[in-house]
Amino acid sequence: MDSAAAPIDFRTDPSRYKHWKLAFENGVAYLTMDVNEEGGLKPGYKLKLNSYDLGVDIELADAVQRLRFEHPEIGAVVIRSQRDRIFCSGANINMLGLSTHDHKVNFCKFTNETRLAIEDASTQSGQTYICSINGIAAGGGYELALACEQILLADDGSSAVSLPELPLLAVLPGTGGLTRLVDKRMVRRDHADFFCTTAEGLRGKRAREWRLVDQLIPPSKLVEQTQKIAEEVAAKSSRPKDAKGIALPTVERQIDGDTLRYANLTVEIDREGRSAKFRLNGPSSAPLADVHAAGAAFWPLALARDFDDAMMHLRLNETEIGTWVLTSQGDGALVEAYDDVLAKNADDWLVREIVLYWKRTLKRLDVSSRSLIALIEPGSCFTGTLLEVALAADRSYMLDGVFEGSNLPAATVRLTGMNFGPYPMGNGLTRLATRFLHDPSQVDELKGEIGEALDAAAAEEAGLVTFAPDDIDWEDEVRLAVEERAGFSPDGLIGMEANLRFPGPETMETKIFARLSAWQNWIFQRPNATGPEGALKLYGTGKQSKYDRKRA
Amino acid sequence: MDSAAAPIDFRTDPSRYKHWKLAFENGVAYLTMDVNEEGGLKPGYKLKLNSYDLGVDIELADAVQRLRFEHPEIGAVVIRSQRDRIFCSGANINMLGLSTHDHKVNFCKFTNETRLAIEDASTQSGQTYICSINGIAAGGGYELALACEQILLADDGSSAVSLPELPLLAVLPGTGGLTRLVDKRMVRRDHADFFCTTAEGLRGKRAREWRLVDQLIPPSKLVEQTQKIAEEVAAKSSRPKDAKGIALPTVERQIDGDTLRYANLTVEIDREGRSAKFRLNGPSSAPLADVHAAGAAFWPLALARDFDDAMMHLRLNETEIGTWVLTSQGDGALVEAYDDVLAKNADDWLVREIVLYWKRTLKRLDVSSRSLIALIEPGSCFTGTLLEVALAADRSYMLDGVFEGSNLPAATVRLTGMNFGPYPMGNGLTRLATRFLHDPSQVDELKGEIGEALDAAAAEEAGLVTFAPDDIDWEDEVRLAVEERAGFSPDGLIGMEANLRFPGPETMETKIFARLSAWQNWIFQRPNATGPEGALKLYGTGKQSKYDRKRA
Repeated sequence: MDSAAAPIDFRTDPSRYKHWKLAFENGVAYLTMDVNEEGGLKPGYKLKLNSYDLGVDIELADAVQRLRFEHPEIGAVVIRSQRDRIFCSGANINMLGLSTHDHKVNFCKFTNETRLAIEDASTQSGQTYICSINGIAAGGGYELALACEQILLADDGSSAVSLPELPLLAVLPGTGGLTRLVDKRMVRRDHADFFCTTAEGLRGKRAREWRLVDQLIPPSKLVEQTQKIAEEVAAKSSRPKDAKGIALPTVERQIDGDTLRYANLTVEIDREGRSAKFRLNGPSSAPLADVHAAGAAFWPLALARDFDDAMMHLRLNETEIGTWVLTSQGDGALVEAYDDVLAKNADDWLVREIVLYWKRTLKRLDVSSRSLIALIEPGSCFTGTLLEVALAADRSYMLDGVFEGSNLPAATVRLTGMNFGPYPMGNGLTRLATRFLHDPSQVDELKGEIGEALDAAAAEEAGLVTFAPDDIDWEDEVRLAVEERAGFSPDGLIGMEANLRFPGPETMETKIFARLSAWQNWIFQRPNATGPEGALKLYGTGKQSKYDRKRA
Repeated sequence: MDSAAAPIDFRTDPSRYKHWKLAFENGVAYLTMDVNEEGGLKPGYKLKLNSYDLGVDIELADAVQRLRFEHPEIGAVVIRSQRDRIFCSGANINMLGLSTHDHKVNFCKFTNETRLAIEDASTQSGQTYICSINGIAAGGGYELALACEQILLADDGSSAVSLPELPLLAVLPGTGGLTRLVDKRMVRRDHADFFCTTAEGLRGKRAREWRLVDQLIPPSKLVEQTQKIAEEVAAKSSRPKDAKGIALPTVERQIDGDTLRYANLTVEIDREGRSAKFRLNGPSSAPLADVHAAGAAFWPLALARDFDDAMMHLRLNETEIGTWVLTSQGDGALVEAYDDVLAKNADDWLVREIVLYWKRTLKRLDVSSRSLIALIEPGSCFTGTLLEVALAADRSYMLDGVFEGSNLPAATVRLTGMNFGPYPMGNGLTRLATRFLHDPSQVDELKGEIGEALDAAAAEEAGLVTFAPDDIDWEDEVRLAVEERAGFSPDGLIGMEANLRFPGPETMETKIFARLSAWQNWIFQRPNATGPEGALKLYGTGKQSKYDRKRA
């Protein structure tokens, strides 16, 4: 563990929320922010004015996730504030000032993923988010609004939206704000420039004319009008109003020294080698026909939850573990059988949610700032959905043949229909399409291989794996690759991986992670923001920062 | 000036080159790198092994530019090395180790622009670049090759291409290498990962199979085969083989205290206010029909050369001047007349070059890490090509009406056909299309306004300017905007501007500037690279860097 403190735990549920209230009425969920000042994740700061830290966002992410699985009847979600004159004042500045560089960066990444999950719910899952702002939505508060499909603002002469990060703190809005302004809401760039340099923000008519918000509503009618709009949206949702959700019990895990054990996943940390070996377990039996009856125990859902939790845990609590070695164990034919269930029931609301959740989980892997090396060995089950994990890796090794003295047959990999569409990356392409950007016909040819067990020679020939050493070379080659990685500069690797992983088209999502985040990381590292005289450190002290004026 | 030393001068010509030789034969230009070890731009390092600093790249940029204007007969350009076993070993590491952060970043930006100018020549101007590698092309050396349309590699068992920045120096290839690998050459990402972590690089068959190079040629035949390939390419060029080029005399300028005077441009620096006021002068008379006879004196070309030189000068030599205030002076009707000449003669090779040069000059403005504020006042001539300068600004102010006591009539702006296509930004869209991303029909409507003199009210209504204060508010509003900008953190502004300026689609070019560069800037700022124990500082000393292992 990086610190003597308890690790940050991403597992929560509404009964444990400190900062959010969740209520339901007429097909609409009301997610009400009421941050407990004393409820910060770490000591040293108070969460005043509905400001947030990672702990607040963990609850938000949990709510967004549970709404999808536990509440099929909900077609719209309203985000609002319990406070009178403040919607949300964004990320807590004292927390940022006290945090290490890596915590700030990892915090921003998680909040970005949560905002994107909100947009995914709105656009893919028929659960549309509406933001109702009474009071000030500043910085991360307005960025949360930007992640919603509609922004309603009280027209009371004081309620306002703002991105004061640059003028007040010398940093950027770190949760996609700049990108969403000009790319999602397509605010004119000169308007955006003025807005982002005006600490007090904009309100009323100009806020609407510049498309910073969608509707102005008299304050006395805000609650009622919000409800009306949300109920209309909910009525049009594709979600089944009479279906019954499935419960998501707490993900069970044991942290046993350097081993992390889940029902479907084991992670072994090699501290000296600065790597962690993931072993994703295939299903232990064939799928039941009734996915709903299986619920959270349904293998693809259960594994995604384990895998997701493990990644978040390692990202935030094990920052020195720079390489994730990805392995699997199980029966590829069973994985294929589960993929068939997912494909055949694609129209079922729950199956849709499971597939969308895998999509997001794989994207979380894609944007993890860790080197990813997949090892495909005898006994593995890199088939379909699980093959995506290997395709997400920076590099993969597949043993050609068997290990001496082992009775496990040679490894094979297998494509299913799930590799050809349901799990696009952030760039909008499948991992296969991204891989074969040079020659899209190779993707078409691979469709002919669906269901075939491809051995190492065939997989290498098909371009599905990077290297296919035999058992004589395997150990040295793999060990060297993992050791070598641990010897490189983590910063250099992060930058390299962020640039090589997402060729081809760009989307708002890749812009947020690969471009906006890179600038934010740079700025977080600059003395003008985080030095002892930097704006982030001096905020609230009344002292003025003295900037280094050189333009880089 | 930032240092007591003489400013970096971007003006050169082949008679003054220290590092390149330029020869011509059968429609092919041979640009041969032979870096003078003692010819570094600053003291303290030797340019060994054909490594380069900004001075070497200034000559390269000059050659690329002159080939286009002075040599219409040249249809292909071969880049090669004079040395026996080394093509080019990239940016000089000692120079990087000695440079300030802002110099490194500005150096990388300029080299990126030069590489993009090479690609622009190949794809837009019929002057195709071919790289012929005998020996080692490492780091920036291979990145130079990547900017060429074809890469020929000697198949001699030792000639190799490599990007050793990450393993050896803990930084990224800073000149677009990662982007061009996966986006231009569409090298598979796992191959790219292996390649970029292998310091010695790849050669022979694997280099070709992974598409790192296009052809392997036996060393004894490399010269002859390169010539054959280049002559074939040149024969197919769209350039006129019997035309006569125009000479590009040295751009004349005077640095007079804080004033920079060119024939068509004046720049006044306000050091206390940390801003520079550009005044672009319109033409003094109507265009002659014969552009070729006018040559380098033809107003659009002359102004572009002045403007380009001024921007480069300010970027590298005046890094504390963070805001560029853009003004113009002259007769809009004359600017329109010149735009007409450019439009009517678009098929003429020289006019094509002039328009392409304005395109690149405007792009240089777009990616300059300076706040850009356009002031449109009585007496200005923001018409057509010059209106693009105002549209490139982060924000524009247009005086509504006249100044009291002045007899200059109220300012107008005017659109010409040049605003609707010939000057795309790096994102592939015109500045108008980028501006009106939300509603492309606005661009179509503006076509109806071509040639109309739009006053401030009309320009504001049409969305062409940000604010249109009257003379009572003008001084305060403008002063406040410029002063306020000077008070913000330069780093924050750079990041904000880089994110707001390029909404919409992304291209290899925007990826290089906005994404790859951002990561590189971050890494340049990290102790693992540039700290006293960082890899860039310790390179060549035999000492090992001790990295901070935390993954951000």
